[in-house]
Order: sequence, then C-alpha cells, then structure tokens
Amino acid sequence: MSTTTDPIALTQRLIACPSVTPADAGAMAVIEAALTGIGFTVHRFAAGEAPDGPVENLFATRGEGGTHLAFAGHSDVVPPGPGWTSDPFTATIRGDLLYGRGAVDMKGAVAAFIAAAARVPDHDGTISLIITGDEEGPATFGTVALMDWMAERGIRPDLILVGEPTSSARLGDMIKIGRRGSVNMWIEVPGTQGHVAYPHLAQNPIPPLVAALNELAALTLDEGTDWFQPSNLQITDLHVGNGATNVIPGGARARINIRFNDLHRGEALVARVREIVARHTPDATVTAKISGEAFLTPPGALSEMVSAAIHRITGLTPELSTSGGTSDARFLSKLCPVVEFGLTNATMHKLDEAVALADLEALTEIYVEIIRSACA
Amino acid sequence: MSTTTDPIALTQRLIACPSVTPADAGAMAVIEAALTGIGFTVHRFAAGEAPDGPVENLFATRGEGGTHLAFAGHSDVVPPGPGWTSDPFTATIRGDLLYGRGAVDMKGAVAAFIAAAARVPDHDGTISLIITGDEEGPATFGTVALMDWMAERGIRPDLILVGEPTSSARLGDMIKIGRRGSVNMWIEVPGTQGHVAYPHLAQNPIPPLVAALNELAALTLDEGTDWFQPSNLQITDLHVGNGATNVIPGGARARINIRFNDLHRGEALVARVREIVARHTPDATVTAKISGEAFLTPPGALSEMVSAAIHRITGLTPELSTSGGTSDARFLSKLCPVVEFGLTNATMHKLDEAVALADLEALTEIYVEIIRSACA
Ligand SMILES: [Zn+2]
Ligand SMILES: [Zn+2]
Repeated sequence: MSTTTDPIALTQRLIACPSVTPADAGAMAVIEAALTGIGFTVHRFAAGEAPDGPVENLFATRGEGGTHLAFAGHSDVVPPGPGWTSDPFTATIRGDLLYGRGAVDMKGAVAAFIAAAARVPDHDGTISLIITGDEEGPATFGTVALMDWMAERGIRPDLILVGEPTSSARLGDMIKIGRRGSVNMWIEVPGTQGHVAYPHLAQNPIPPLVAALNELAALTLDEGTDWFQPSNLQITDLHVGNGATNVIPGGARARINIRFNDLHRGEALVARVREIVARHTPDATVTAKISGEAFLTPPGALSEMVSAAIHRITGLTPELSTSGGTSDARFLSKLCPVVEFGLTNATMHKLDEAVALADLEALTEIYVEIIRSACA
Repeated sequence: MSTTTDPIALTQRLIACPSVTPADAGAMAVIEAALTGIGFTVHRFAAGEAPDGPVENLFATRGEGGTHLAFAGHSDVVPPGPGWTSDPFTATIRGDLLYGRGAVDMKGAVAAFIAAAARVPDHDGTISLIITGDEEGPATFGTVALMDWMAERGIRPDLILVGEPTSSARLGDMIKIGRRGSVNMWIEVPGTQGHVAYPHLAQNPIPPLVAALNELAALTLDEGTDWFQPSNLQITDLHVGNGATNVIPGGARARINIRFNDLHRGEALVARVREIVARHTPDATVTAKISGEAFLTPPGALSEMVSAAIHRITGLTPELSTSGGTSDARFLSKLCPVVEFGLTNATMHKLDEAVALADLEALTEIYVEIIRSACA
C-alpha cells in the first residue's frame, strides 16, 4: 500500500503533530499533501485571533457536478493530560492497537477517509473534505468560518458524512442521525446584604433563586420523540460565596444547562426560563448562550446508504442514534442531510486513546463503500 | 475624682491595653488593681489553649449575704481594622467624645460599673463582677468557664446586669430583657458526577437540595410573642463549585441560620430541619451548631428597677427589647434574672468607636442607682 491508501501510516503522521486546539502543529500540511497527491484541489485559510485562534481550516474537492458528498472532520485534539503509557504525540503500536492522542477523535477517521478517496480514484460527482482545527475548542473560527467560505463560493454539498467517533462497543454498531441542542444559562439574583439578626434590613436573594430553581428542576419539557430522548434540564452550579454565618448575602447565582431535542428551539427555551425566573424574582438577570440547536436528519436515503455500507463490511446493522453531546454537525445540518459515523468512542478524550488497527482498515473500506454509493 | 471613681480615666487605661480576643494585654490587671483598691476580693484564672485561648477570666466580690447583684462584662475587643483617625489603642478625647476600640463595647461600661461601686462604698448584700476576656471570640473559655468556677464554689447571683451596649440613639433608650437563640446548619447533599448529555448515568444533588431549601425558606416558625419578633430562618450560603458547563456536579452544599425566640429550643429546630431535608434527600447530612438558646427575663422586678434608675438619671423610659444578636446573657440567664444595659451601640465594632464623655458619667450614676436599689 502507498502511504496515501494506508490509513495507519497517515494516522501516525497526523498524531505526530501535537495539534492541541487551536494549535495546528503541521497537521493541515500533512492532510494537504496527502490530498494534493490524489488529485484534490486544496484551499486553506486561517481564521480568528488569539486566544481562540488563529485556526487553520481546509476545504478540498475533487470531481465536478453530480452528487456532492462531503466528509467533515477536525485535525485538532484535546490536551493529552499526564500519565500516558507512551508519548501521546508519538503514534505507538502495541499489540493490535495504535495509541496516540486523536487516534479515534478523529485523526484516524480523517486518515481513513483520505485513504478511501485514494482507493476510489475514479468516481462520478464531487467529493470534498471540510476539515477544521477548531472542533474541540469554542468552534467559533472553524466549521462556521468554513461554511461562510463555502457560501461565498456557492459551494453546497448534497450529503455530509461527519467522521466523529460514533461507534460504541464495536465499529459500526451506531451512527448518529441527529444531536440534541444545548443551551447554558446563568441566573444571577441581586439582594441586599445584612445581618441575620436584622432580616428586615436585608433582602436575601437565595429564597427566590431556590424557588425558581425548584420550579425549573420540576419542568417536563417533553416526553421525547421517535428519535430523541426527552429534553433534559440540569442545574449545574450554585454560588453565593458567603463565609460569614451571621450575614445575609448580597447576591446568589446558579447555572443551568438544557439538552433539547428538535421539538424546541434554544431561544424559546431561554424565554421560558426567563419567564419562570422573573415570576419569582423580577430583578434577576438570565444570561444565555446557545451552543447549538438540535438537528435531525430523519432516517432516509443517507442513513440507509451508510447503514448498508457498514453492514457490507462489518455485518452489523447500526443503531440510528441521537444521543451524546454536540458536534459540528449542528452547523453543517443547515446545508443538507448529515449523518455521523466514525471509530469507537471508548477512549476518546482519555488517557491512552487508541484505535484498533483492524478498525482503521474496516472504516476505510466502509468509507470506500459510501463514496461508491454516493458518487456512482 | 479619684481615678477609681472617674470612669473616663479608667476607660482610657483599659483602652490602652490592646486586648483583641483572646489577648489580655494587661486589661485584667487594670481591672484587678481598681477593684482591689475599693475593697473587692479578686479571683483570676486562665482557661483554654491556643488558638482560642488561653483566656483571662476574673471574678470579684464585695460584701456578703443579702441580695447578690452581679455585673457581667468583658475586657476583650474586636480587631480595630485599618483607617482609624487616631490610634485605636490610645484613648483620645476630641470634643465631647472619647475615641478608642472598646469605648462602648464595653470597656467604658466596665469602668462605669467599677466607678459606681467606688461611689457606693457601703451597701447591704453582695456585689460582684463577672468579667471574661472571651466574649468577642468563640466564647468557649470565658463566661461558661466562669459559671463552672462559680458553681464549684456555690456562688449564684440573684440578679445579673450585663453591661453590653444596648442603648440605641440615646443612652437609656433601650434595655434588653432577652435575646433570640441562634443555630447554624450545614446541609450537604452527595450526588454522582457525570456529563449533562447522559443524565441517567449521574445523580444531580442540586434538585433535592433546592427542593428542601424551598420548603425551609417558606417555613413560618411562629408569629412572634409579646416580647419577641417571629423566629427567622435565613439561607446564608450555597456552594457547588462546578466550573464545567457540561458536568453534573457530585455534591452540593447550603448553610442556614435560624434566629429563634423562646417558643423554640435549638435541638428541636435542628430535628425539624433534618426531617425536611431527609424527606427530599435521605442521603444528605445536616451538621448543626447551636450558638445559644433563646432567653427571656419576663418584665418584672429587675427590669423595673433598671428602668427606674435610667429614668431618674436620664428622664427616659427605656424600651424593653429582645432584638439584635446574641450575648453572654444566653449563658448567664440559666442562673437568675438577667437584664442588659449599657452604652450606645452606634459605633460598636466600627472604625472610630467612641463614647460620649457625658454618657460615661451618666451610666456610672445609673449603675450607682441600680447598686443602691438592689443592695439597699
Ligand atoms: Zn471529535
Ligand atoms: Zn460586647
């Protein structure tokens, strides 16, 4: 195998670049060289400024017209942390496994897709890669900037395959056809500090906060849908910071997170929380940050094609799931149907992240099947 | 005036000793010398160990048999803090005021009582002084140790006058005939940390804590009594300390304080809080510290005698109050009727604490009247 058709060698070269968000550390150059070598036209640009940037982004395309299949992924990784058995940025094979930060999330999948494209040199339609260096960070200067770049050039894929590690126990047991949305809210209730012996001279902010939180915690947002778990609200933090037992504090804060399915929009949930909080304490401020809306690609042609490819190579029929955290598919789903499928996620973001060598080869063959099906 | 009958000179000498709790800094020696000079038998002992001790305590007595009137007070002061106009431990007269830490709380009152005793050299009955160096601290080795010392010797006063600064706008406008009790409770709810995207794998401790606090905040403990305000529960702190927006925390804490009147006992309130918390979250722990039980000396002979003395000197009829924080009267009230009366409290524990020179003289004369009435 040439190094371009061999996903293992390419994964090793990518792991050797310590591209901890937002650093690139040469990773994009490895991808660019590999893609240029197999006939892709590669565009690269940086976006953003320190501390969250600059972020390296890459768009590569091969072929013209016809069905446009895009593979989306990222070259950045989360920090390795201490305690690895071998250097996290030196890809090391022990037994059947390849160890290194990014092995499954998701340098291995990027390498597998490039190897698959190398193995299918002739195809109809268009294949492209949308690769960002800012998926593990704030995701401000990555996929969103790439989508702006594509929109300015009138580029719009017909199908997007995101290569995040969606497999659970075995490669191919799960694909994601949607993701819940996520919104964080910070509730801040002002009060008037005073001595506990003179409560009429103070205004304790904690009782109205607690009353509002009690109502929020009891909310049933929905009962779930055919494809989604029920939306879920969690109170994730409380803070007053009053060390004095005889003092009524002058302020109190809480933070909540809502993971919501496609029955909701982030703004409507924020408005609902604001209404509940204001009823208990009109002076409160609620600051909201919507990390992403929910998306669903209803089961159909794309998920059937990906499932069939997985079944041909692994014999498994993947579960169509919408579980887990957010991914950049929350942005890409605005363009066209999106399905996520990649390596097993057991070791992602952990010590001694590792991918089975056999999985890298099998994933490459599954991606080959998908390219052939989409661009036949 | 000799320095013993002059409360101003004696206050100045006491302020010169920087007796910040639990330090004595020579204050007890000043008191001992003054009392010995006017015929008191003085006993002194130290109690406790660092960091809350050792604490200097003093019991002095004059006369024998008959009605036993005791004056209770303290020689320690709270830290001065920065920013005083003149040195807090150099008593300084500017205009009609004497400035210095302890001027009103309560070296001035101790000096006034000694001066009053000096002005009434002949009396029936017994006069004693119960002086501790540990009122502003944890109060573990002070009045409680003095009461043990007295109990071992069979000493039990019939009437106790506590010299805390009870006057509000003018000397003589208020005496205290009781104090609310106080109890602090720390509620700790354990949980199981996890990712907000997988709430079924975690157990968020905040909802049950918030539900319990919401019920506690809505409690009506009582409607108040003829002499007491309603008992009052305040939530004084919340703490989770979870910086990660996508993490369900593994624990949550709250702190509450209850100021309660004589319809309640501390232990019963703790049991009631524990029952409410356990109903919402059986795994929670509630740690309690009862700072003091409520006490009331119902209006009667003692308060009438003190009120009459105040009226004769100032023309005012004092309000009989139970407001404010705790004092060592919470301990002494186990022995006999207790009333608190002393200087104005506007500057206590503050920068530039000061007493009016005229108030020191008037308080001395009021104490003279009380000694004469009690030991006639
Ligand atoms: Zn990833
Ligand atoms: Zn005091």
